[in-house]
Amino acid sequence: MSLPRLQLKAKADRRLKQGHLWLYSNEIDIKATPLKALNAGDQVEIYGERDKCLGIATVNPSGLICARVVSRDKKHSLNKSLLVHRIKQALSLRALNFAEPFYRLIYGDSDFLPGLIVDRFGDYLVVQMATAGMDRVKDDIQQALEQCLKPKGILFKNDHSARELEQLNSYVDAVGDVPEFVELRENNVNFVAPVMQGQKTGWFYDHRNNRQYLQSIAKGKRVLDVFSYVGSWGIQALAAGADEVTCVDASEFALDVAEKNAELNGVLDRFQGIEGKAVQVLKALIEAGEKYDIVVLDPPAFIKRKKDQKSGEAAYYHTNELAMRLLKRDGILVSASCSMHLAEDKLTDLIRSSSRHLDRQSQIFHYGAQGADHPIHPAIPETRYLKAQFARIFMA
Amino acid sequence: MSLPRLQLKAKADRRLKQGHLWLYSNEIDIKATPLKALNAGDQVEIYGERDKCLGIATVNPSGLICARVVSRDKKHSLNKSLLVHRIKQALSLRALNFAEPFYRLIYGDSDFLPGLIVDRFGDYLVVQMATAGMDRVKDDIQQALEQCLKPKGILFKNDHSARELEQLNSYVDAVGDVPEFVELRENNVNFVAPVMQGQKTGWFYDHRNNRQYLQSIAKGKRVLDVFSYVGSWGIQALAAGADEVTCVDASEFALDVAEKNAELNGVLDRFQGIEGKAVQVLKALIEAGEKYDIVVLDPPAFIKRKKDQKSGEAAYYHTNELAMRLLKRDGILVSASCSMHLAEDKLTDLIRSSSRHLDRQSQIFHYGAQGADHPIHPAIPETRYLKAQFARIFMA
Repeated sequence: MSLPRLQLKAKADRRLKQGHLWLYSNEIDIKATPLKALNAGDQVEIYGERDKCLGIATVNPSGLICARVVSRDKKHSLNKSLLVHRIKQALSLRALNFAEPFYRLIYGDSDFLPGLIVDRFGDYLVVQMATAGMDRVKDDIQQALEQCLKPKGILFKNDHSARELEQLNSYVDAVGDVPEFVELRENNVNFVAPVMQGQKTGWFYDHRNNRQYLQSIAKGKRVLDVFSYVGSWGIQALAAGADEVTCVDASEFALDVAEKNAELNGVLDRFQGIEGKAVQVLKALIEAGEKYDIVVLDPPAFIKRKKDQKSGEAAYYHTNELAMRLLKRDGILVSASCSMHLAEDKLTDLIRSSSRHLDRQSQIFHYGAQGADHPIHPAIPETRYLKAQFARIFMA
Repeated sequence: MSLPRLQLKAKADRRLKQGHLWLYSNEIDIKATPLKALNAGDQVEIYGERDKCLGIATVNPSGLICARVVSRDKKHSLNKSLLVHRIKQALSLRALNFAEPFYRLIYGDSDFLPGLIVDRFGDYLVVQMATAGMDRVKDDIQQALEQCLKPKGILFKNDHSARELEQLNSYVDAVGDVPEFVELRENNVNFVAPVMQGQKTGWFYDHRNNRQYLQSIAKGKRVLDVFSYVGSWGIQALAAGADEVTCVDASEFALDVAEKNAELNGVLDRFQGIEGKAVQVLKALIEAGEKYDIVVLDPPAFIKRKKDQKSGEAAYYHTNELAMRLLKRDGILVSASCSMHLAEDKLTDLIRSSSRHLDRQSQIFHYGAQGADHPIHPAIPETRYLKAQFARIFMA
């Protein structure tokens, strides 16, 4: 059974040829092939000029991004067999980079599975589907994962906001016996992640390398971990010999899990949690005259969309400046951003300007990015989003 | 004795206030304070609007960059005492990041000593001065280094081209007993560096983290190290368990030292050197049907000046494509660039376009930068130059 056809306008095949996977609705020749005749999640064959088939895509007729390429070969549509192939490809990249089975196994577009996220916690998998195309093949995804990994349990954590854009329902559904907390190890430190109640998949693997770098400089230090979530930065600093770590988070639940993680590593005596909004807590700590050797600032995305650019940059500036005011002489600021819209150079410039505002100088001595389980698709800038800049702030 | 005065034009103080250290000749109010009345290497007090002293700079009246700030406090001119302070500041950053005394100790502007480079090889130091201002205080530099580090020997390797711009003479001069080869350890691998006859200071510490990442993926691999110099990438791959490494370099001397380094680590049986120009050797290897798991491409700067942008990018494209053709299925390209004028995103795009030209896909799974002994001055983009992108090249 052949798939429906989607005809591109003249020259609209250019981006695809460059390696990109997305098609915008204004690039479709809707006279030849009406988008509206298709249902969200349908697969189509894509045709460019001179009747050349460019591959297979899943569609969402009502989306700005109306189609996403899942295969460049019309013989391979999105099914269990293709999923198994892609999962094996993804596994081999992770096996190259990681000694243990704790990582993002599938990172959407970059693993040539647009709309699919799979995080692996040993025998447990947490899956997120963000497109109607992936939603349609849920059973194939489950079977392909079972064939490749024989997991004890799979959690479909499909309650995230990206699904609304594709008009998909929100639900959380477990296959097999998935515990509320799963175990993982990152940079030789043990953690539990709250896959059911936590943020997103329960854990943020993307900062792995940056937390490893933090470990390398943490010994003997007094550390403040702002926007700590379940303590992934702070507990690793403690495990690496930090004298004392204070985690700050607005969620009592997250701090409870952070405490659990501190206990798990035998460092509870050097751990402290403060519940509250970051800006308020930072101000209170300044007021109280507290000083730290290292402040880690890993906020949620302040710039979710381009329209938030200005206000978001102001928020980064403000929190970075507050964090700097809590540093001891020659202290270290670890300034992270997961906003794709905040360029790396811009974050450097915000560190520069906030330090200058305090009449201090700065040196950025380490530039961290997302780990190898979040590879970048070189044609899709959106796949690159994470920054962690390590800066020394001082009087020159 | 007070220093001569250098008056800036209106608003020319803006960049300095942002943290920058350089002044251009067109920013000086030469009517009030003629540049030509000064000698290259003189120190001056810099004045902005409302007679505010902005600090002390060294000058070079005939240079486009006519002055470089050495201090923001008019009480501290560039002398032994300030040098000792700056060296101690720099040492504390290195001590934070490195367990052993092998690193770039002073990285010019970023360590607030514009024009000064010091590489440390344990008890030996290699110094480069690139400005008349630094040249003038050579004795102070020597004494400050001796006071802070008590080295066995200091090599002034002042034979580089940057000195011509400042009309400084070219010479190499040793204080104390400096051997022809000094020992160093990087990422737990032992090397000798040819400080006398080698390139620049004899060793490129900047790629330390990137070579560490190479080690993490090298086990059991067949590796080609192009533009190998003395084998810093290749020998580290071998030490980490690579099956076989071939180093390619145009210099017979560099390959001899690479062989020495292989021997030093007991991996000579898995080492091979090929003398020749990179492009010619790559073509010959393609012709011979050779294939590698990993190709490392760490060329000299193809874009030294902005006018080389186009030809330089073409050279990066060409060598990257040749390197990709030597990869086995799902092979890894480590593509480095030390050209400041090649933006990180542009290098990613060159990897994308050359892989597409071969009808392959790519994923960039690691973004490496210069190490912590090459910190970035956030107001001076020129201090950030090094890239190393780890890409998997494959059929999708």
